[in-house]
Amino acid sequence: MDDLSHYVSENKQRFLDELFDILRIPSVSTDPVYAQDVLNTAERVKYYMEKAGLDNVSLEETPGYPIVYGEKIIDPALPTVLVYGHYDVQPPDPLELWESDPFDPVIKITDEHPEGTIVARGSSDDKGQMFMHIKALEYMISHNLLPANVKIMIEGEEEVGSPSLTWYVQNNRDKLANDIILISDTSLIGKETPSITAGLRGLSYVEVTVQGPSHDLHSGLYGGAVANPANVLARMIASLHDGKRRITIPGFYDKVVEFSDEDRARINAIPFDEEAYKRLLGVEALEGEEGYTTLERASIRPTLDVNGIWGGYTGEGAKTIIPSKASAKISMRLVPDQEPDEITALFTKHFLSIAPPSVKVDVKAFHGGYPYMMPTDHPGYRAAEKALETTFGRKVYPYYTGGSIPIVPLFEKELGSKSVLMGFGLETDRIHSPNENFGVWNFLKGIETIPYFYRYFAEDFKKA
Amino acid sequence: MDDLSHYVSENKQRFLDELFDILRIPSVSTDPVYAQDVLNTAERVKYYMEKAGLDNVSLEETPGYPIVYGEKIIDPALPTVLVYGHYDVQPPDPLELWESDPFDPVIKITDEHPEGTIVARGSSDDKGQMFMHIKALEYMISHNLLPANVKIMIEGEEEVGSPSLTWYVQNNRDKLANDIILISDTSLIGKETPSITAGLRGLSYVEVTVQGPSHDLHSGLYGGAVANPANVLARMIASLHDGKRRITIPGFYDKVVEFSDEDRARINAIPFDEEAYKRLLGVEALEGEEGYTTLERASIRPTLDVNGIWGGYTGEGAKTIIPSKASAKISMRLVPDQEPDEITALFTKHFLSIAPPSVKVDVKAFHGGYPYMMPTDHPGYRAAEKALETTFGRKVYPYYTGGSIPIVPLFEKELGSKSVLMGFGLETDRIHSPNENFGVWNFLKGIETIPYFYRYFAEDFKKA
Repeated sequence: MDDLSHYVSENKQRFLDELFDILRIPSVSTDPVYAQDVLNTAERVKYYMEKAGLDNVSLEETPGYPIVYGEKIIDPALPTVLVYGHYDVQPPDPLELWESDPFDPVIKITDEHPEGTIVARGSSDDKGQMFMHIKALEYMISHNLLPANVKIMIEGEEEVGSPSLTWYVQNNRDKLANDIILISDTSLIGKETPSITAGLRGLSYVEVTVQGPSHDLHSGLYGGAVANPANVLARMIASLHDGKRRITIPGFYDKVVEFSDEDRARINAIPFDEEAYKRLLGVEALEGEEGYTTLERASIRPTLDVNGIWGGYTGEGAKTIIPSKASAKISMRLVPDQEPDEITALFTKHFLSIAPPSVKVDVKAFHGGYPYMMPTDHPGYRAAEKALETTFGRKVYPYYTGGSIPIVPLFEKELGSKSVLMGFGLETDRIHSPNENFGVWNFLKGIETIPYFYRYFAEDFKKA
Repeated sequence: MDDLSHYVSENKQRFLDELFDILRIPSVSTDPVYAQDVLNTAERVKYYMEKAGLDNVSLEETPGYPIVYGEKIIDPALPTVLVYGHYDVQPPDPLELWESDPFDPVIKITDEHPEGTIVARGSSDDKGQMFMHIKALEYMISHNLLPANVKIMIEGEEEVGSPSLTWYVQNNRDKLANDIILISDTSLIGKETPSITAGLRGLSYVEVTVQGPSHDLHSGLYGGAVANPANVLARMIASLHDGKRRITIPGFYDKVVEFSDEDRARINAIPFDEEAYKRLLGVEALEGEEGYTTLERASIRPTLDVNGIWGGYTGEGAKTIIPSKASAKISMRLVPDQEPDEITALFTKHFLSIAPPSVKVDVKAFHGGYPYMMPTDHPGYRAAEKALETTFGRKVYPYYTGGSIPIVPLFEKELGSKSVLMGFGLETDRIHSPNENFGVWNFLKGIETIPYFYRYFAEDFKKA
């Protein structure tokens, strides 16, 4: 693949033009107004897959938006890579905060990206990243360098929770059979700090309501004699952590995988400037579970956070009531091997048990998500590590992060294979926010790196 | 005063017709739309004061709505009673919950009032109650039975915090000089349980904000590593009470007057059905400061209540953020001799001191109010007690309540005299709510009782 780097630089402008073509279509899956645009985007993705030399390219019908599927089956004896990505995007709101039209991509020079960055909704999440795969496949197919079978599916409902993909995967297990799944929908720690996302936290999410008196009461007439649901809620929430900032729910930590000293050392080897982190967040001190570093707390440790809280009078000025009820949304980030339904049940049981008799407590459970872990000695991880080492010429870090990508545990469950999360975005990409962007350097680096993944994965597969 | 009862029953229809005349004018002081109505109401009150035989009746100019003033000065050697009331009313909203037009009074028969109750905005608060005084004075003046000098002032801004009254009182100390102030703007414990309001709680009111990161954070990426302001706020609020439900702010109880066993026994002698109270409030258990009864907790003990709390995502469904900040409105009810400014300062100092370094805390103070206590051996209290005993033929209870009437501490400060809170409303009057009403029986009972107050107060004054 000596000419790979040359191919990429030769074709840079065409790659960008083609990506811009896709970025111009506002494929907002959350809003039915954009339905035709979402469909048009699927058609364009199909066009580029065909152009890349993939076979059997089709818009796979689903209960919702189609999945664009393509494949190149070379030899059943070779390993099969399943590529996943999505062509839908987040809504562009708030529009007034964009410095350019979210659906009219422009290249902007920034401090982070002296080579320019592509500013458009979906540039990083995930049109730009999934398009790297199509371009890398184009290179490998046209140069007869594809060392593995490949299947690629790009869905159109990621931003609404992938309902149709779930249905599609469950109904196409054989068709999607693979040895490894490759996904670029995450970020690098930094341009000079290549990384592979090795762990994702899961989620348990509840809404709790503490009901006191049947109606708001005058705090002068009843204050002191009647339990105030907002005070009770505060007391109950406060009691969910102990003085060491550990969660007090009985059984909560039972299934938590404790990382080895070696693994923890690898996590803490990631270049990390705590002062810069605090400055970025605008806080003067950090706070978290005793005995763990900030990097560990944000990745391999479970959490319990209030996402929203409300009750009583919240307008201007003073109103003296005892609110009838108070509520909170509480999310728990889970780590292997915690199970969302089990944690939700433990939370519910505990939260009801600590309610004083003076109030009624209701716990409503929302949809949760499983945590995910990719062992760093897995062939898929190792191939990605070597690929990144090759193109970056630097040490590659396993990156354990707190975000969840629900389809990854789904793939593991339904297809029995692990996913390699080799993303090329940056934390500064502003995904889901105004002025989303994706560095031209990152886009090209992705296209250059992907073929090495195939090479190393296939080599390893042959040996095994 | 043998013919008092006869006079009241003879003139009942006229009294009601006159009151209805005043109730028909929508004197909503909170809404400028009603400005002319408020002024028209003042004119009508002036008319009825003149008709009652009062002298020097005038609309006293103020920076806001006028105060209707009248007097009957008989003899400088006699004691002087200053009567206070208000002619403005709360807005009628929500209109759709009224069973009849709030400004077209009707008499309705209810379980509570088989003799009928006057349904109209302001019937109990305070047009009906202040009008009892005009009618009682009419009786005493026309029958030459007035045993004291009387000054009466009826204001039009009580429902907006009495700003002009404060100005007026401060600028008319000599004119308003008196030996006792008499006010009917409160309730009886029950028709068969006559009472005098002997204590009112004061108020300290703050809004606190706990600021964490400068913007909302993804709870997956940052959860566990960064202090969550909503969790911190819950923790801080929870810590403001100890396990005995006492307030933990240092110095908070220093000036609290502990009631004697005898006084507490009097409070607890009030007929009170805790089961009925719980049913009314819709709670299964009560909660409050250890060592005190429900009646005591709601009246002679200070409190700390969250009136409102908010932060983060409060819409439908699940959103996984660490909110940038969380806020709460917190009110403290004060008892003698706590001082609102001092308590606000103690709260602020303590709340800031318990803030962890991971957040910034802001405390904003709102206007507070002094607590008030009328000693039960005060001549004014004793005169009211005897008057009620005379007309009700029952034991009279001192009633300590948690509500505040800011003008009462103001009068004490500016005029140096105590107020007798001899109200004839009932808890079921629905003041400030739709279908406000005032029992015809209560209205007439008030007119009958007031002259006895003058008699007993003057007799006692002569003896002293």
